[in-house]
Amino acid sequence: MKTAFISDLNSEQNITSFFLVCEKEIRNTREGKPYLRLELGDRSGTIEARMWDQFEGAAKDINRDDFIKVQARVELYRNRPQLAVMQVRLAKPEEIDIADFLPATKADVAKLYSQLLEFAASISNPYLKKLVASILDDPSIAAKYKRAPAAKVMHHAYLGGLLEHVISLCGFAKLSAAHYPELDLDLLLTAAILHDVGKLDELCYDRSISYTVEGQLLGHIVMELETVSKAMDAVPDFPANLKTVVQHLLVSHHGQYEFGSPKLPIIREALVFHYLDDLDSKLAAARAALAIDTGEPEWSAYSSALGRKFLRLDQFLKKP
Amino acid sequence: MKTAFISDLNSEQNITSFFLVCEKEIRNTREGKPYLRLELGDRSGTIEARMWDQFEGAAKDINRDDFIKVQARVELYRNRPQLAVMQVRLAKPEEIDIADFLPATKADVAKLYSQLLEFAASISNPYLKKLVASILDDPSIAAKYKRAPAAKVMHHAYLGGLLEHVISLCGFAKLSAAHYPELDLDLLLTAAILHDVGKLDELCYDRSISYTVEGQLLGHIVMELETVSKAMDAVPDFPANLKTVVQHLLVSHHGQYEFGSPKLPIIREALVFHYLDDLDSKLAAARAALAIDTGEPEWSAYSSALGRKFLRLDQFLKKP
Amino acid sequence: MKTAFISDLNSEQNITSFFLVCEKEIRNTREGKPYLRLELGDRSGTIEARMWDQFEGAAKDINRDDFIKVQARVELYRNRPQLAVMQVRLAKPEEIDIADFLPATKADVAKLYSQLLEFAASISNPYLKKLVASILDDPSIAAKYKRAPAAKVMHHAYLGGLLEHVISLCGFAKLSAAHYPELDLDLLLTAAILHDVGKLDELCYDRSISYTVEGQLLGHIVMELETVSKAMDAVPDFPANLKTVVQHLLVSHHGQYEFGSPKLPIIREALVFHYLDDLDSKLAAARAALAIDTGEPEWSAYSSALGRKFLRLDQFLKKP
Amino acid sequence: MKTAFISDLNSEQNITSFFLVCEKEIRNTREGKPYLRLELGDRSGTIEARMWDQFEGAAKDINRDDFIKVQARVELYRNRPQLAVMQVRLAKPEEIDIADFLPATKADVAKLYSQLLEFAASISNPYLKKLVASILDDPSIAAKYKRAPAAKVMHHAYLGGLLEHVISLCGFAKLSAAHYPELDLDLLLTAAILHDVGKLDELCYDRSISYTVEGQLLGHIVMELETVSKAMDAVPDFPANLKTVVQHLLVSHHGQYEFGSPKLPIIREALVFHYLDDLDSKLAAARAALAIDTGEPEWSAYSSALGRKFLRLDQFLKKP
Amino acid sequence: MKTAFISDLNSEQNITSFFLVCEKEIRNTREGKPYLRLELGDRSGTIEARMWDQFEGAAKDINRDDFIKVQARVELYRNRPQLAVMQVRLAKPEEIDIADFLPATKADVAKLYSQLLEFAASISNPYLKKLVASILDDPSIAAKYKRAPAAKVMHHAYLGGLLEHVISLCGFAKLSAAHYPELDLDLLLTAAILHDVGKLDELCYDRSISYTVEGQLLGHIVMELETVSKAMDAVPDFPANLKTVVQHLLVSHHGQYEFGSPKLPIIREALVFHYLDDLDSKLAAARAALAIDTGEPEWSAYSSALGRKFLRLDQFLKKP
Amino acid sequence: MKTAFISDLNSEQNITSFFLVCEKEIRNTREGKPYLRLELGDRSGTIEARMWDQFEGAAKDINRDDFIKVQARVELYRNRPQLAVMQVRLAKPEEIDIADFLPATKADVAKLYSQLLEFAASISNPYLKKLVASILDDPSIAAKYKRAPAAKVMHHAYLGGLLEHVISLCGFAKLSAAHYPELDLDLLLTAAILHDVGKLDELCYDRSISYTVEGQLLGHIVMELETVSKAMDAVPDFPANLKTVVQHLLVSHHGQYEFGSPKLPIIREALVFHYLDDLDSKLAAARAALAIDTGEPEWSAYSSALGRKFLRLDQFLKKP
Repeated sequence: MKTAFISDLNSEQNITSFFLVCEKEIRNTREGKPYLRLELGDRSGTIEARMWDQFEGAAKDINRDDFIKVQARVELYRNRPQLAVMQVRLAKPEEIDIADFLPATKADVAKLYSQLLEFAASISNPYLKKLVASILDDPSIAAKYKRAPAAKVMHHAYLGGLLEHVISLCGFAKLSAAHYPELDLDLLLTAAILHDVGKLDELCYDRSISYTVEGQLLGHIVMELETVSKAMDAVPDFPANLKTVVQHLLVSHHGQYEFGSPKLPIIREALVFHYLDDLDSKLAAARAALAIDTGEPEWSAYSSALGRKFLRLDQFLKKP
Repeated sequence: MKTAFISDLNSEQNITSFFLVCEKEIRNTREGKPYLRLELGDRSGTIEARMWDQFEGAAKDINRDDFIKVQARVELYRNRPQLAVMQVRLAKPEEIDIADFLPATKADVAKLYSQLLEFAASISNPYLKKLVASILDDPSIAAKYKRAPAAKVMHHAYLGGLLEHVISLCGFAKLSAAHYPELDLDLLLTAAILHDVGKLDELCYDRSISYTVEGQLLGHIVMELETVSKAMDAVPDFPANLKTVVQHLLVSHHGQYEFGSPKLPIIREALVFHYLDDLDSKLAAARAALAIDTGEPEWSAYSSALGRKFLRLDQFLKKP
Repeated sequence: MKTAFISDLNSEQNITSFFLVCEKEIRNTREGKPYLRLELGDRSGTIEARMWDQFEGAAKDINRDDFIKVQARVELYRNRPQLAVMQVRLAKPEEIDIADFLPATKADVAKLYSQLLEFAASISNPYLKKLVASILDDPSIAAKYKRAPAAKVMHHAYLGGLLEHVISLCGFAKLSAAHYPELDLDLLLTAAILHDVGKLDELCYDRSISYTVEGQLLGHIVMELETVSKAMDAVPDFPANLKTVVQHLLVSHHGQYEFGSPKLPIIREALVFHYLDDLDSKLAAARAALAIDTGEPEWSAYSSALGRKFLRLDQFLKKP
Repeated sequence: MKTAFISDLNSEQNITSFFLVCEKEIRNTREGKPYLRLELGDRSGTIEARMWDQFEGAAKDINRDDFIKVQARVELYRNRPQLAVMQVRLAKPEEIDIADFLPATKADVAKLYSQLLEFAASISNPYLKKLVASILDDPSIAAKYKRAPAAKVMHHAYLGGLLEHVISLCGFAKLSAAHYPELDLDLLLTAAILHDVGKLDELCYDRSISYTVEGQLLGHIVMELETVSKAMDAVPDFPANLKTVVQHLLVSHHGQYEFGSPKLPIIREALVFHYLDDLDSKLAAARAALAIDTGEPEWSAYSSALGRKFLRLDQFLKKP
Repeated sequence: MKTAFISDLNSEQNITSFFLVCEKEIRNTREGKPYLRLELGDRSGTIEARMWDQFEGAAKDINRDDFIKVQARVELYRNRPQLAVMQVRLAKPEEIDIADFLPATKADVAKLYSQLLEFAASISNPYLKKLVASILDDPSIAAKYKRAPAAKVMHHAYLGGLLEHVISLCGFAKLSAAHYPELDLDLLLTAAILHDVGKLDELCYDRSISYTVEGQLLGHIVMELETVSKAMDAVPDFPANLKTVVQHLLVSHHGQYEFGSPKLPIIREALVFHYLDDLDSKLAAARAALAIDTGEPEWSAYSSALGRKFLRLDQFLKKP
Repeated sequence: MKTAFISDLNSEQNITSFFLVCEKEIRNTREGKPYLRLELGDRSGTIEARMWDQFEGAAKDINRDDFIKVQARVELYRNRPQLAVMQVRLAKPEEIDIADFLPATKADVAKLYSQLLEFAASISNPYLKKLVASILDDPSIAAKYKRAPAAKVMHHAYLGGLLEHVISLCGFAKLSAAHYPELDLDLLLTAAILHDVGKLDELCYDRSISYTVEGQLLGHIVMELETVSKAMDAVPDFPANLKTVVQHLLVSHHGQYEFGSPKLPIIREALVFHYLDDLDSKLAAARAALAIDTGEPEWSAYSSALGRKFLRLDQFLKKP
């Protein structure tokens, strides 16, 4: 099991622990002597590592994205901590707890996913119901849907976070449609379930959360537009105008141009869905900031998604 | 009863109808001949009127904010339509339907207000409950609360509009607190009921909707801050920190500096209330724009609150 | 032939001319008498028209988007000019010159289109060449491509304007790739030819230039993304990464979020293409503003696309 | 007396000096061994400190906000300097010069305050004079008014800074009213004296300058609005409209929404006061930046309040 | 003398009055009949005029920028008022009061200018004194300086307005330098006197206030930069660094990039001068808006320079 | 020759290398012992250096902007690397390769400059041709033109960079004028050659690239305005309007107020030149970011000029 996290390393410390290989290469010193250079990571950050002697075996066996066991000394180099590796080997699967490398939801994912399927099944419009079902029934999508985070840093930034976010939105959409009878619940549920499907491939979350190259070139709105459009084309007799409406729900859900929506919402369901999505994301960001113990009794951690700290209301109100 | 609305007047038309006196003055022509100049209004707009002969009696009897009966001819003057008044007298109260001058909610105001009192009574925190009750029990506030519009043009811009908006928010707040257990329903209800109390005096809505001078100098956030703070001071033992929290809910509810909130929400309930308030207002603006028949089957009227037209979804989807 | 244009009508004038029917409906006067209300248009603007008597035959024969011959008198109504129609009939095709209703390029469209095909044929990458060919060879696309304007008002706002704009871009792209050898000409040409394909259906330009409902819900970037993506899927073995690159060129070509691009250019060709497209559009807008005689010898008309007037350099420099 | 300031500490140095306790807690090492963790501060910054042995007595006696005498060694930990404390005891009052912990004005505060009272006494409007007097005569307000800084970092960020700023504004207001006879000096003086009264409690400046929780929830504009409004209510017969004017002066003095003013100035005195306040603050920020010796002969320190460095004019002009 | 102002013309009125010729051209009717088209102006606005018969003599004698006497009838054409000219002749100089065409200061210009010379003479730095003197002593500059407005619409938009503005700034600069001893009065006075010298040629104010072509291409900052730089070069031994400082004062005086200053103030005198200039301009704009009787007792006219109306404080405070 | 670059220094390393003296001063330790403090630089960065013993000779001989040879040990001080100097002497000219201190173009500068002269000679307008020639023929300008970088960090930030940028612009201008016949090539070439002449003195690039004080006070647009205006005045009979046009090209070339252009382009050549300049600069910035090996195979270094990384297209497309 992992014993030392990168953010906790102290200079001149000897450690034995497990890391993810983020980068690997052979380099030469100025004198021409080769050495092994690695970038290692865990859920707390990344660190440079160098192995100067007897690294040939390691260099052959170890590759990017491998988990390894390392015995090393923490040194300062160019004023930043670095590992001088003495021994290294591939970790055995049973030695690795992926949670040391990637944070994950504490909820029961299987249960969340069956809730999702229930929401999907509750859609009454037959075309939308078939559309959503065809997406969720695709095994490769379903597998990713159960794992994907909702974002890299902004909100729900952990495995299963996207699913949590969508379930919350489906429930809130149901309440909203009950409160505002002018709203079509089927459209809200369709938007909730499909609006972030592009994130399944915009993000990469095998061993750490990052953006894929495709994600950086296109973004999840553009990516899911293609996925969902193809799925609509595959539903027999899917009405052309309804297809346009679903596409509008997807492309307008960020609500403003500067947040990457190429169109503003001009359907009531699109307007409302944007608010629900934004509220759920921001509240999750506040929740995450409040979950971090900063030592300041009345203040959360600083939330970069919100640009501020939140007040711990209970601490503030209980004061004399 | 009113037979001609200002927005419908045609040049060279003879009319007999009722109007509100917005301005009144005696002026002289270049030749030094005095005449009576009025600005008249109804719910569709305003128009200039002049009476050239035998206006002395009228000038004595008629004042700003009076309702009058007018017989006149529509003429063009400096390229704008104007009334040449032939006869005028004060209207009798039974001749006037205030709805011809000020639009009003179609809902049952007494029923809405009793719903409001029920929401207020459902608050469990004793201090907040007393605070809200003391405001709503003030007869002068209650009388205005039953009449006030929520805005001059942006949303719910009709008598009773504020009450409709608040009732909708209370209901939505209840659903939201059920959905997000971390939220304190008492704070959300308090915010919903008190967040626009300043509008009771920021706006003037006796015979038309406009801003008071005080409203333009201070705005409803600053105005209600004083009203509600005094009410909190009058509740025995109201906790100081809770008072600060209520004040924060009021001052932060516009959500951003550029919309006149001097502080951003840093309590979760303040963040969520801002979203609920904004969503309810914007959806009402979309609803109002869709209620206007523009002759374009698929498009609402242009909503200046939203900066765009909305799609009539039913018209769009029913198309072949 | 058309003898009177709407922007030239004077009050109290009797006219006989041809118009496009933009709207048609039967309405009732307050007294309950039915009449025919039309909105008529030509390339200079639109005007309301009413027919009070013997309109039944006309009402049956005439529909939206028909061209009609009208005998009428120009009157002022609610302070705006209006036609009182005396006689009306459907126009015969030979009586109508579409150019009276829609402005068009003065260039030879067939020649421009063959230039376009030459540029398309000059692409050396086999996948991109097939992609572009498959789009341009689609007869329904080609027919629209020869007619479409590049915009409703901003630039090249006339039939054939899009084609002119694209030809100019292709030529400029070729010069740019020669000047900057690091640029891939194939990608620039592909972007030039396909970047506005969505406008073929975002705009409607049968009898006047306006936005389609689909265009307003999705916009041309989203619309062409689907068209072009399907075309790439139909090219055998089209490389997945190349597809992503082409999609990036399309979605990033507006260069900034606030202009509706959901992603900023992060490929050099995308960056450069954005500049070429913007320059060509803005220069065309300046050219159009300068083409209007405003009576001010040194100044162009005000260009809303550019937010300013341009100087007539020749007039300014020739002065003593 | 203090011998070593935090910003001057070097690694591996042994020091004996005085510090303020900013945080205190008992923590456990991974091996479960408890130790004392402190955050210590002085006017130059803050530093972590740990005491590993025999800290029980210290832990009992020492609390947050105490001044202590420390004997320690400077070490690097996780790449940041840290104190390894060997001995610690509470400082005696006579050992502490508060100026080592909080910067203060070099002016004579008593004299400044009597100048303030003179300005207050010069107000001729009887209601405004009573209002200002009632605020300044409140002993708890007066005590804070003599100590408060004008800001945490932006300008006059030292004890007595607020008083200096207000005195400068009063004098400048007098000159301005003489120069622009249309301005009411009483209103300008009232604004000058009361516009930052909320800062007395928005900031906390006992042992360091920071924001209070109430300050972060409400801000000084909202806070002083309540203080001053109550004071106006307590002046017999204070005219209602004059109260509104004073409130407007307070809420509009930041001049723009984005700087936290919920209303823009719409009275000339409010407009002018905003300029005077802004000019005095920004000039003070430039003065402070120029007072720092940066080693660059022609440039001041970077002023974060102004977003730039200022030129040392004397150095620049004296050059050959 | 002028008897009818353009803004007061009524339809179907017969008038005899004096106007400025803004444009003149011969046009043809559709039937090929020539007529004379004029655009006429006075201080209240502009109007189209047409002369259908016997205009040949007029067309020969009358040119742009002439003052003419016109007998005409006011008619509506394309829904805008227009003059049908019956008789026209050149006005005699003694018939024209330029004040009917261009508003002017009510102050004594000769007295203002001698005040300006006194301020200039009070500069103690010999180089700056010579610089300012050389500018003010140039007869062609002095003549314009006595006439120029300070702006077309924003503030001091009348003949002599620039001089009023500069005198006010000089006086205010003197007070400011007395209040803030760190400021160099010589630099402030130099900035005050020279900062708008470019407006002498940026604006054209012979018969109406408008921008010159050069003014639109360069703007007054760039224009005065050349004038003042040449004047500095002509002062023997003017120190190079002092020249740079004066140039900085000129180019930075708008205070922000978006207002056309290519550099932000980084000298204290430049910072302060920007505030004084802005305050004096904005206060003048408020003063002008308050000077217009709008019929609303408590509100000024809308000031486009300030984007709002101002409160009439006296009216507001006097109310019961 | 230089053997160790500052960015490569490791703690506890002994080095012997050459550096530029950026700052020099004698300081005292707390104990009052004097020492020599230097700031040393090379093209990779800067570092503090201290010499504790026998520094008197060095202190006398060595001055700011000297190149020196240093024997020293790398130590950590206040957590930053620092040199403890053991020996130091002035470097001999032959020991220094300026390229170790300032990056430079790899192109043949003499050849580039003769290309520039050819472009200048190709201008056909005699006044513009003489203007450009008079600038380029000035030996002191020519010398700087051959050395100047185009910017400190944004693009072409190396010796000769400005020349490269201008040559590229001249070529691109020629292509653009061929493509858009409405453009005047002479104006484009004049703009290209003169638009950054102010950078010759805005930047200082003797031994490192930085801003001059004059550059910070005025900026290159203002600086070149004076240079070029004087040169136009010196060309006999240079037409006044043409001078204004050239000045407009210079002051508008940043295209927007917020980028320091006091006027927006209102001549077509000014509009187009702004695009060409911006495109060439941004593409150069992308090129520079792509030239840096970051270890990420698909991504360039982060470009602060562009606010993003660029994709390495070749790497991305070659992937399976």
